[in-house]
Amino acid sequence: MSAGWIAVAGLGPGDEALVTPEVRAALEAATDVVGYIPYVARVAPREGLELHPSDNRVELDRAQFALDLAARGRRVVIVSSGDPGVFAMASALFEALEADPARMGTDIRILPGITAMLAAAARAGAPLGHDFCAINLSDNLKPFAEVERRLRHAARGGFAMAFYNPRSKSRPHQFERVLEILREECEAARLVLFARAVTTPDEAITCVALSEATPDMADMRTVVIVGNEATRRVGRWVYTPRSVPA
Amino acid sequence: MSAGWIAVAGLGPGDEALVTPEVRAALEAATDVVGYIPYVARVAPREGLELHPSDNRVELDRAQFALDLAARGRRVVIVSSGDPGVFAMASALFEALEADPARMGTDIRILPGITAMLAAAARAGAPLGHDFCAINLSDNLKPFAEVERRLRHAARGGFAMAFYNPRSKSRPHQFERVLEILREECEAARLVLFARAVTTPDEAITCVALSEATPDMADMRTVVIVGNEATRRVGRWVYTPRSVPA
Repeated sequence: MSAGWIAVAGLGPGDEALVTPEVRAALEAATDVVGYIPYVARVAPREGLELHPSDNRVELDRAQFALDLAARGRRVVIVSSGDPGVFAMASALFEALEADPARMGTDIRILPGITAMLAAAARAGAPLGHDFCAINLSDNLKPFAEVERRLRHAARGGFAMAFYNPRSKSRPHQFERVLEILREECEAARLVLFARAVTTPDEAITCVALSEATPDMADMRTVVIVGNEATRRVGRWVYTPRSVPA
Repeated sequence: MSAGWIAVAGLGPGDEALVTPEVRAALEAATDVVGYIPYVARVAPREGLELHPSDNRVELDRAQFALDLAARGRRVVIVSSGDPGVFAMASALFEALEADPARMGTDIRILPGITAMLAAAARAGAPLGHDFCAINLSDNLKPFAEVERRLRHAARGGFAMAFYNPRSKSRPHQFERVLEILREECEAARLVLFARAVTTPDEAITCVALSEATPDMADMRTVVIVGNEATRRVGRWVYTPRSVPA
């Protein structure tokens, strides 16, 4: 039995004050850090620690690489931004494990982190203070028809919504379509928050009515939060009340 | 202008290693800690710090008390377990602020924390690795018909689901009705996770098929996670794949 292990760790949205002590301890005990280039860049180099940055969209290769390192006795942290279980590396690792039963005995821990939507919500107020859902708008791994189905059910169910990966250079037109669907399902005054690069020096938060929302307000560093029909402003804040009247 | 402030801070699910440095720093700078009895009990007493534990269901009174303290120049941390923006004190504070415009200038910060569903998901694997929603099953603040509407839309939209406050002594029968609704909407083999007191010494995690789930598997310290139709086991883990086939 190898003494190696894998920890899949969430680095939070950017601010080092949001990295949990649990994640910090795993990074201190690690021999190897594996992850997407900008996330590995957040880990301070030190003697005895090998950094293995890799490109986007190679999640399964990266997971397999981590499993192989752990089998050789290495102590591996796979870094994600935010929380590793929310549109990040935890599921990719289990997919790789499922495809490689010989690695089933690997010592694996998932270490949660502050996910982008909750950091964004905190900066804006409490827009996710009532029932809500999280939707990855990227169609890299699912057909857009599935995105549309989820948007309509989320709206009709009265959920607030948080959107990850709203827009990228390779699919500039989809977010426009998302806004069209929301306009079919929700009233024009519905509040929409665009929270870019939260807790970093580039942070920018904008809140507009759905009727004023435009696709260029989002990019890949933006989390978009759509309130429910009760979401409202109080002073500079945006919040969703805890109650639904009978 | 008073030098007082309010920080609404998430203590995470229980393990001190999941309290962020940001929250730790706020507690160290505070003169007063306000919150529900078991959460205030997690804060170490020290000279110069007044602890103000209060009972459940007095969220608005507690928020108003914090606003009054801050107006007197006190540095107040309102503690929630998990994340303060998820079925916790952040929305209650903004409700109190809305009702008391004289306090609109209060210096307020919301400090995110590790919310129970993401801690539970991490312990179990990655059941929330694809689109998901969070629903508060308590009908203290909304009619049960609203819970039912959200459950059905969540299921029909293909979301995984996390349930907060699934069951209490005052409403023992509702969770049974929730399971009935899920059985109408989902296949019998759908995986259901019961995660009790995660990251504490009392932690207990059980995963069963929906057909085997019974109401007594949940209590007020349990978060329930229902997978989507692709959620599956790999070894001792439960995860939801990142992909939806076209």
